[in-house]
This record gives sequence, structure tokens and C-alpha cells, in this order.
Amino acid sequence: MELNVDLEREIPVLDWSRHLSERVEYMQSSAIRELLKLTQQQGLISFAGGLPAAEFFPLREIEEACRYIVRHEGAKALQYSPSEGHPPLREYLATSMHKYGVPAVPDNVLLTNGSQQALDLIGKLFIDPGDYVITESPTYLGAIQAWVAYQARFKTVGMDDDGMLVDEIEEAYKQVVAETGKSPKFIYALPNFHNPAGTTMPLERRQRLAEIADKLDLPVIEDDPYGMLRYEGEDITPICTFIPERTIYLGTFSKTLTPGLRLGWIVCPEVLVKRFVQAKQGCDLHTGTFVQYIAADICQRGLLKAHVRRLREAYRERRDTMLDALTEFWPDGSSWTRPQGGMFLWARVPEPINTEEFLKDAVAEGVAYVPGVHFYPNRDGGYHAMRLNFSYSPPHLIVEGIRRLGAALKRALEQQ
Amino acid sequence: MELNVDLEREIPVLDWSRHLSERVEYMQSSAIRELLKLTQQQGLISFAGGLPAAEFFPLREIEEACRYIVRHEGAKALQYSPSEGHPPLREYLATSMHKYGVPAVPDNVLLTNGSQQALDLIGKLFIDPGDYVITESPTYLGAIQAWVAYQARFKTVGMDDDGMLVDEIEEAYKQVVAETGKSPKFIYALPNFHNPAGTTMPLERRQRLAEIADKLDLPVIEDDPYGMLRYEGEDITPICTFIPERTIYLGTFSKTLTPGLRLGWIVCPEVLVKRFVQAKQGCDLHTGTFVQYIAADICQRGLLKAHVRRLREAYRERRDTMLDALTEFWPDGSSWTRPQGGMFLWARVPEPINTEEFLKDAVAEGVAYVPGVHFYPNRDGGYHAMRLNFSYSPPHLIVEGIRRLGAALKRALEQQ
Repeated sequence: MELNVDLEREIPVLDWSRHLSERVEYMQSSAIRELLKLTQQQGLISFAGGLPAAEFFPLREIEEACRYIVRHEGAKALQYSPSEGHPPLREYLATSMHKYGVPAVPDNVLLTNGSQQALDLIGKLFIDPGDYVITESPTYLGAIQAWVAYQARFKTVGMDDDGMLVDEIEEAYKQVVAETGKSPKFIYALPNFHNPAGTTMPLERRQRLAEIADKLDLPVIEDDPYGMLRYEGEDITPICTFIPERTIYLGTFSKTLTPGLRLGWIVCPEVLVKRFVQAKQGCDLHTGTFVQYIAADICQRGLLKAHVRRLREAYRERRDTMLDALTEFWPDGSSWTRPQGGMFLWARVPEPINTEEFLKDAVAEGVAYVPGVHFYPNRDGGYHAMRLNFSYSPPHLIVEGIRRLGAALKRALEQQ
Repeated sequence: MELNVDLEREIPVLDWSRHLSERVEYMQSSAIRELLKLTQQQGLISFAGGLPAAEFFPLREIEEACRYIVRHEGAKALQYSPSEGHPPLREYLATSMHKYGVPAVPDNVLLTNGSQQALDLIGKLFIDPGDYVITESPTYLGAIQAWVAYQARFKTVGMDDDGMLVDEIEEAYKQVVAETGKSPKFIYALPNFHNPAGTTMPLERRQRLAEIADKLDLPVIEDDPYGMLRYEGEDITPICTFIPERTIYLGTFSKTLTPGLRLGWIVCPEVLVKRFVQAKQGCDLHTGTFVQYIAADICQRGLLKAHVRRLREAYRERRDTMLDALTEFWPDGSSWTRPQGGMFLWARVPEPINTEEFLKDAVAEGVAYVPGVHFYPNRDGGYHAMRLNFSYSPPHLIVEGIRRLGAALKRALEQQ
């Protein structure tokens, strides 16, 4: 190719803002993603990210799956594939969801490019600019980020140590209707091992939430990324079991298999799967074929279950280590949730300390966390709280990180 | 888990339409995807899909890449990774884009979940409901589908055998401004081996388009999925080379490596990469880590170039086979483009025949194609045209399919 332009010339910088859509004003770079950059700082003990522990990734199983798939499934594992998902994987998920208590058949299952894509597709299908959605407060950062891009507004309900205060939903609903003349679009709930709160909703509260959703004619988004990672007690029936006709259940392989495959799934009524498929075709045609074959292979051989058993033991130990270290090292007046599973706990520090301001002290001590306020969609709480991840760091670093945070907290209190 | 509900009970079907967003009314299931279902009919010769030939997929190279990555890169190839993309892959793409004539550094490159995701992200960043975008007519179906979901309107300009009639752009711009009081959001162009038209824009027309975009202060989306698949002549300088400050260039591995990895990329100004990253974080956090490692491994070993050389030979033979068969079997009054590369040609049939109606005759003969009207965003043309894919079927089936279509066309003409 003969070039008639100088590639090394200085290229002008345009002001793109005048070309952009209105919704761009509402977007912001994820606080978590920006914080993750902190965690790449050499030697930092990070309780900030939501990362699973890389040392447990089932590498051998994945290598074997790749070899088997390329040799025995061949080219079809690398070709375009259905927007709904790889049929054997839909089938596996329907069966395993059914065992979990959700009445699902393969036609109720849609594979997504990680659970985050499910949140984006929900935004696309449901949210018009200015619509309200009802969430817990605090709630999952990725959901806030997905839905602000659709110009959603957030009406929040509080939480206690048993999760969402579901009896506040009706008042939230009434406020939205009074303000806008329209119903909120849905209720978003994380019943198991809440991110960031670490709480789990008891059965009675789930049933009550289902009744309220039915009464108010509201869809429910049940986000359950950590459901498989329970460290004590028995599984509790999902909300979806009671009201499958109005629930969109979200699952993911990111916390069990590995996040780098980017594989999540939606379980919802078949009429709605068709809508999600239309939206997904415009978004990315379909979820990666090869990674779906990998997940299907590992699931079908029963390797995922065995792997999850190992993970539960390792993460239980890390949770217990963190809880013990908190008791030992943190100042009086601190408190924290005691999660039955998942990856996070929610810690409250004595009131004079603002966790957003305290973060720089923590990083100076070589420890990172996410300040609580980021999980409040309307930034109206969480000033004295933080989210602590216990899945990523090995036990000795958990002890060291919690010890350093405790010492820094005590110093900060003395200086008040 | 003790269940207190009957999973086998009959589940009511809700009317979800009252909960959905306005934009859902604009979405529709991709005609192409629906047509792809046709191609799964046993024994059908399909010229309908946009599928690469699976028999050339570099399976051995992919198997080796998987083994190498799992053993030598280990867990980080399966962990969460940056939204911008895997750094070595950004670097490889920047270098190869630079060789191709585009002034790019790694910070100009963003990896996407297939090129379709780039189209969706563009919609998210640029299109407010009712905004116009300027496209060729016919244009790529996936772009139409991505942008109708953002409630875009389409102002189209015509094409001849040298692609987009760029001198119509200014008139289209004026019409949009007169109607809406606002500028259209961008110009979308496929300069190489156009899908569906099979045309290639000569250098002078690209330069002219760049001048017009500059004059009208319009961004340009340069979609180039097939650029590597040239079967004759020399590469022509991309539009991006002339106006990198206002061009968003889209590339993909789907047509060269394999589609099932779902890997595409954007090259654009760094200020805009930051905006795309914000949008992508809300959509799916990041593109799959593992598949990016696979692509990087294959690219860095120089295996992609060798593979593309083989593909070019195979696809050139298929293109020539289809062109020869059209000459031999199709009725007088038919015509077609002669693509210099890519996967498609655009065939016009004698006027009495409507290609949308004729499709059922073709399928009855065991042959599928996509009727031309689907590529017209405003459905105002293409009634007597069809898109024919020549990359997917082996040569003997191309001859047979074109022969059958020719015979059916002749019969249809006799019945008029």
C-alpha cells in the first residue's frame, strides 16, 4: 500500500463531548475498577476487589477441556453459535437450577457474557430515562453502573443483618408513584451473601418479598453470584422459586469456575428469554462459543461440583481468619457482618472516621478496601463503613492486613 | 434445602410488555439470525449466513495456544482483566494497524466482545432517541440492529460499484439538519468488500469522504471486518489514516481467526477510548481474558498471518467459482458485483422477481440467501437483489447452489 500521509504527524485532539449522547453524562468509570488499579500496586494487601483466589483455579481441568473440545468437538466449538447459548450448557444449567429449587427448563436459560451483561440487558429491556428501580442500600456497584447508563433513578430500602428490609418496599413504591405517576420498574435483590453487605435473607423474608412483588405487580431481579459458596447452614429457597413468573434470576461461573471466561446466565420466563435474545443480538450476537464448550465440558464431567467443594473449604477458612482478626485487632466501637458465604463482609468503624477519607491512610499502610459510600446509589450512607473481601488474600495476609487497618484506625481515633 | 413449593406446578404467564422500556418496540430479532436457523436445515446449501468456512479453522494452533497459556501463563489468563483489553494484544493490534496505515499506539486500541459489541457501544455513546445516523444503503444488518435499539433513525446515501456515493453525504446532512435542527451523529461506512454490497471504495473516494466529514464536523465509523481478506490488488489506505482524530475504526478476529472466540477491536482517539471503557464496564466489565490470551499467542507467533494467507487462497477460489457459476447459470438481466475480497457479493435479478417472495422457492430448491431489502434500514430498496455468501460452502456446492438458483429464477421468469 502506498501511503500518501505521514503517520508520525501530530494528530489534532477533537472535543468529542459535543457528539456524545445524553446518557454519557450519567456514566462514570467504576469506582471498583479504579480501585482495582490500586490493588496492582506492588505489595499492597487488597481487600478491595471482588476477585476469587487465583491459586484455586482448576487449571488442569481447563487444559484438559480445551484439548478434548478441539480434538473431539472440532470447528463447531469455534464457529458462530446460538444467541440463547450452547444447548448442552443451557440443559446443564436448567437441571442444576431445578435441583436448587428453581422451576427451570432449558428454554428458560440464556447465557450471558458474565453476569454484568445480564444487568446491562435488563437495563436495555426495562429502563427508560428517569425510571426508578428499587434496590437495597447498600447494593451491588455493577448494577448501579449498568443502570445509570440507562438514566435510571434509584429508590432504596434499608437493610439489617438479615438483609433487605422488605417491608419498606411498599412505601418506596408509593413514593415513586407519587413523584412520577409511574410504577418503579423492578425490585433488585441479592438474597445470598450480599455484596457488599455480607447478609443473607431468611426464608420468611424471601416469601414476604415474593408476596409484596405480586401485590405491587413488580418484577424481581434476584442476583445470586455467590449462591454456591455457602460455608455454613443449608441452602435457602431462592425468591425465584415462589414467583418464577415475575423473577429474573442471575447466576455466574465467575465465582466458581473462573471470571476470565466471562460466563453468566439468566433464568426467566420463556417469553422474556425471547426479548433478551433480541437485545443480546444487537449487543454482541452471542456469548463466546469456545468458553461455553469449556464450561459445559467441566460441568458435565462433574468437576465443577468437586471444585466448588474445595473452594468452600478454602474460603471458609479465610472468612474465619478475617472474623478472628477483626475481633483481635480492631478498636472498640467497630462492628461487622458475619457472612454465611460469599466473598465479602461489611465493617463499620467508629463514627468519627470517614472511610472515604481514611482510605489514603490505609493505602499508606499497604492495605486497600472499598469505602461504603460507593455502594449507596444516592450516596446517602456508608460513610463509616467499608467492604472487605476475604476470598482473594491468603490467610496470613488477611491477618496482617486486618492488623494494619486496626492499628491505623486506633491511631486515627486518637487524633480525633 | 427443604422446599415448600411444588416445582412441577403450572406457572402463570405474565404479560411483560407493560414493564418494558420504549426502546423494545424498536428492536426486532435479527433477520439474519432467523435466517441462520434456515441454514441448519439438513442438506440446505446456504449462501445466507456470514459464516467463515469451518474447515479452515486453525484448530491445531488453538489447541497449542490453550496448552501453552494454561501451563505458562497460568491463573492470570483466567482472572478478571482490564476493560481496555489484554495489554500484549493491544500492543500487537496497534503495531499491525500502524503497518496497515493507521496511526495507532496501544492506548488507541480497545478490545470488544466481537465487532458487534463495538457497534452497540457506539450506539450507547452517541445515539439519543430520534438521532439520525448516515449510512450506506444497503448497509450492514448488525449495525442497523445495534442502533435501532437506541432509537436511531437512518438517513441513507446510495452506492455504485465503487461503494458509497460520498457526494450525497452533504445533502443527507442538510436534510437531517432541516428536519431536526441537529446534526446527524456520524457517518457509517464499510469501505472494503462491503457487506452486503461486495464493493470497495477507491482511494480518491476515501479521501473525499474524509474531507466531507471534516467540513461537516462529523465522526466517521469505519467498519473493516474483511480488510485482511483481499484476493486481488493492493490494500487501499483506510479512511482512518486521513482523519484519525474523528474516525472510529472497527476490526475483528471473527473472519480471520474464528468467530467463536468473540473478539473484535476499536481503534480511536485516546479520549474516546476512555469513554468506551466507561460504557464497556457497565456492559460486561471486560472482554474474555482467556480468549484474548489465545489470540495474542497466535498473533505473536506469526501464525495468524500464515493462516490468513491460506484463507485468501481458499476464499479466492470460492469467489471465482461463484462468479463463473453465475455467468453460466443465471438468466439474462441478472447482474452482480465482483468483490476484490471479503465474503459476499450482491446479485440483482430481473425486475419482475421480488427476492423476498422468491426466497421460499429457493429454499424449496434447497438453497438459502438473504433478500436485499433487509439491508435497507428504511426498507426502501433491494427488492430485486440478494446477498450471496461465497466463503462458507465448498466449491462444488457453490456451483450446485448457483445452478439451482439460476434454474428457479428462469422458471419464475417464465411464469410471470
